Amino acid sequence: MKAAIVTIGDELLIGQVADTNSSFIAKTLDTLGFQVVNMRSIADKKEAILETLGHLQDQVDLVIMTGGLGPTKDDITKKTLCSYFNDELIEDATVLKHVTDLLKSLFGRELSEINRQQSWVPSQSKVFFNKVGTAPGILLQKNKTFFISLPGVPFEMRYLMENEIAPWVQHMFEPFYNVHRNILTHGIGESLLAERIAAWEDQLPASIHLAYLPSPGVVKLRLSSAGKDKLKIEEAIHNQVNMLTKIIPDCIVSLDEQLPIEHQVAALLKSKNHTIAVAESCTGGKLASCFTGIPGASQFFRGGIVTYATDTKVKILGVSQDTIDEHSVVSAAVAIQMAERARDLFQVDFAIASTGNAGPSKGDSDADVGTVFIGIATPDGTFSEAFKFGQPREKVVKSATNKGLELVYKELLKNF
Amino acid sequence: MKAAIVTIGDELLIGQVADTNSSFIAKTLDTLGFQVVNMRSIADKKEAILETLGHLQDQVDLVIMTGGLGPTKDDITKKTLCSYFNDELIEDATVLKHVTDLLKSLFGRELSEINRQQSWVPSQSKVFFNKVGTAPGILLQKNKTFFISLPGVPFEMRYLMENEIAPWVQHMFEPFYNVHRNILTHGIGESLLAERIAAWEDQLPASIHLAYLPSPGVVKLRLSSAGKDKLKIEEAIHNQVNMLTKIIPDCIVSLDEQLPIEHQVAALLKSKNHTIAVAESCTGGKLASCFTGIPGASQFFRGGIVTYATDTKVKILGVSQDTIDEHSVVSAAVAIQMAERARDLFQVDFAIASTGNAGPSKGDSDADVGTVFIGIATPDGTFSEAFKFGQPREKVVKSATNKGLELVYKELLKNF
Repeated sequence: MKAAIVTIGDELLIGQVADTNSSFIAKTLDTLGFQVVNMRSIADKKEAILETLGHLQDQVDLVIMTGGLGPTKDDITKKTLCSYFNDELIEDATVLKHVTDLLKSLFGRELSEINRQQSWVPSQSKVFFNKVGTAPGILLQKNKTFFISLPGVPFEMRYLMENEIAPWVQHMFEPFYNVHRNILTHGIGESLLAERIAAWEDQLPASIHLAYLPSPGVVKLRLSSAGKDKLKIEEAIHNQVNMLTKIIPDCIVSLDEQLPIEHQVAALLKSKNHTIAVAESCTGGKLASCFTGIPGASQFFRGGIVTYATDTKVKILGVSQDTIDEHSVVSAAVAIQMAERARDLFQVDFAIASTGNAGPSKGDSDADVGTVFIGIATPDGTFSEAFKFGQPREKVVKSATNKGLELVYKELLKNF
Repeated sequence: MKAAIVTIGDELLIGQVADTNSSFIAKTLDTLGFQVVNMRSIADKKEAILETLGHLQDQVDLVIMTGGLGPTKDDITKKTLCSYFNDELIEDATVLKHVTDLLKSLFGRELSEINRQQSWVPSQSKVFFNKVGTAPGILLQKNKTFFISLPGVPFEMRYLMENEIAPWVQHMFEPFYNVHRNILTHGIGESLLAERIAAWEDQLPASIHLAYLPSPGVVKLRLSSAGKDKLKIEEAIHNQVNMLTKIIPDCIVSLDEQLPIEHQVAALLKSKNHTIAVAESCTGGKLASCFTGIPGASQFFRGGIVTYATDTKVKILGVSQDTIDEHSVVSAAVAIQMAERARDLFQVDFAIASTGNAGPSKGDSDADVGTVFIGIATPDGTFSEAFKFGQPREKVVKSATNKGLELVYKELLKNF
């Protein structure tokens, strides 16, 4: 079962809007057992759409398109579908009633001619009814390939994928399973990791595919396989993961699906009724954001202070001015004091602090751009580690955030 | 000048990672005068890459690819390029030295065999040197089409696009200009807007293209044109915009600006030597992150406090317990006090505060999930506004962050 995704819109091709629809549709199709072989973004142009449909025809079983279904003149998908399928637009009574009702209830106005056109669909199409917007989803078929056209507004597309398309797919296609397992590692580079697991990688069966997904300070390993017997595939992957955990027990942070490390930290904190706070300079709110991004964060995260200007480290957080003068603001001594002050102020068990130079230019310190000190305060004491994260700014901030989470995670694994 | 963008990686096709590279590259190419006709995401498979290159060959002048340049076995782009261009990999001395130095300075370790392979490039290629990572950019040419392969790590790709590819493109291609103007409207639906401007839309010259970009409550109109005479195109678009502003003066919020709103806030603050701080509850560090994501943030952003646990609003920020008891923690009174306390503590001109219920469950307040109060403290006084952002959590946090930035932006536009 092969599929392709086509997003239609000039705004994508000029980089005005980032395409988030493709990734959502891809994930849904992957869960439904499809192999997505191609994702494309193309212009709101008849020739571009026709060429793409022609190219994908018979190459895949299912094409999902988004965009160009709106009521204005730049929306040409429906007309172009008629041209490709040699069909014509007819008014759909159910859609017409829905559009009429929606306009009345939301805006208190009557249907206009432009609105009426929203209820026109190709005469041979099956209509997927859109409860959250005015443009319906449309299904057409040519030879063995199904073509589904959905509105480009993300929440409308998501509504239709989840409530209409997924059930239809499960009804139409034989069950097939894509199984992925993600192993999150921290604190080891991609090359070094590849060397350590080379022998294991070489013995992987051909049916299991390994991918490396590196980001600053983190490498995610993904094992993927596919087939009709889901349990058998899961077991085969499980066995490989078990072997791997014995080879790199020191690097693996989680064997769980997609969850980033802050979720592991959260789980460990909650299991012991422990709390955490942050004192951030170069990470500038990112550590707090990571924690507060987790639903129920108030159970373990009490808060944080972003001391971006140097004097606020003294005035608000209570770091000693003498320490800053003696060691400079980017130093182990300051990182340790920041973590300890955050732990005291917020009355928590653990605290993470960051102070560093994210660049591009040097701040209130002589430290090289990319230098970061992370301080970790625990019930057993406080320590700091120094890092050089290079540049650019974005990488330094991300690396420092990940490293802070990693260091506190490792502390939590000790027997508190 | 036509271009295509190809992102390579199974993680894209299973929806594990959303492709942000394509949109960045598209925007850069658009600015450089290219018409991007096609963006594709394909698998890390030799056949998929070869088929795509063959299909784009001679259709476009430039193909930019990302991904598959890493050091591990699933990275096959370089080998596949050799196969397509009938070339072989050779060691590049400059890249080798760079990789060696980087490993020593960042990790204090020697070059391994896997690392050495990062310096291998096709013998006929031009190398774009990557200062922020180990994988260089590679340029190859077949007939009239140039193919550029870049690493998939976003900040490495961006570094190369900005510092290497853009200057090379400007050197190689004749100047050509894409001009876009965005008109932001609010409070009018897409259909109604289309009806009101129908006569104006009909008289637009063929050289100017109009697009409607709707999102809830907002429709962006984009006028686009292209050519060699930039001033002439800009003037033609300018005249059309002038006509439009007379037709819908009540709907237009802004005439252009693509940078996110925090950059506009930063520019206004810097122009007056003003400073800002934040006190965050439901936005949990996101406001601070927005500001500290801007290089040179220390010129205007002094810091913030994330008071996630209710009692920290009292103990650390200094909000009155009586106010919380009387009005509840999610209230206008608390938002106002938070903003004022942040303004005092950080000794700044402006402060933004957030308190609300992001969900999924209710916190220390009876307020409905999605309820958020934003407090804005200015030299002229403090105010609060209440919002209902619905759900899910992520949307509430994002909406609250954007609204906080928007409210302070509007204050800054007044004559401070």
